[in-house]
Amino acid sequence: MKAEYINPFVTATINVFTTMVDCPVQRGEIYLKDGNLCQEEVTGVIGLSGKAQGVVAVHMSSGLAIYAAGAMLGETPSGIDEDVIDVIGEITNMISGAAKAELVELELSVSLPTVIRGPDHTLDVPSSISMLGIPFTSEHGNLFVEVGMDMSK
Amino acid sequence: MKAEYINPFVTATINVFTTMVDCPVQRGEIYLKDGNLCQEEVTGVIGLSGKAQGVVAVHMSSGLAIYAAGAMLGETPSGIDEDVIDVIGEITNMISGAAKAELVELELSVSLPTVIRGPDHTLDVPSSISMLGIPFTSEHGNLFVEVGMDMSK
Repeated sequence: MKAEYINPFVTATINVFTTMVDCPVQRGEIYLKDGNLCQEEVTGVIGLSGKAQGVVAVHMSSGLAIYAAGAMLGETPSGIDEDVIDVIGEITNMISGAAKAELVELELSVSLPTVIRGPDHTLDVPSSISMLGIPFTSEHGNLFVEVGMDMSK
Repeated sequence: MKAEYINPFVTATINVFTTMVDCPVQRGEIYLKDGNLCQEEVTGVIGLSGKAQGVVAVHMSSGLAIYAAGAMLGETPSGIDEDVIDVIGEITNMISGAAKAELVELELSVSLPTVIRGPDHTLDVPSSISMLGIPFTSEHGNLFVEVGMDMSK
């Protein structure tokens, strides 16, 4: 996976959190995912297919997930309920959809999002694939967006 | 999602476990997924896109995952390592690929698989989507294959 393919996901994340969640995020340095433990409790996952097969994982703290749901639904939930799950899925979908629109040459389409929770859950892609990630910080919690793509097929 | 769309996943699961894993599985009754706690420790997830947006989740016990890796690699791993993760991803990919080939009218393509682990991890799709599942039993452990598809786009 070319490192330049991560940039549309960075831009999309900043735009979605600024405009839809009203929670500006500050990006850190791109990293190569090493180890599989997810640093945050909640992960939105979406599959990509087209001229590449890929996956996008959006990890966020419970606090940020609940804040985002409150901002998008107009009422702050007391915990991670069905509404919060839907918002995390929708944020994952919006980030992937916006990035896909920039990566025209890959002719990507997105799958249904899933949302994974668990105190120490891990997420792996096949060992032949490198996942790149970008950490983000915000006033309401941390966010990690990780992308893996297989260009070989 | 039409219930008949689940049948190719049932057939594919039986075929993959019989021919690739040398571990025949017995299917139970189809269920509508209610609640989100995954009954087994390890989950392979793959996204579908095309005339439907979907997701396939293959939950299996650690014991079955390790047995399957031993059968496919020729050497039984002592625990869930990178090789086992790759085998779970590949099993998820083979089941989805075989089912996709039967569901020609949906023109599906599959994403990169991911593998989730965690003692009490949960997996949700958006609340507007019903996930159907099929339980399987085998000599080496249990297996649940769950499929959700959004036909509305």
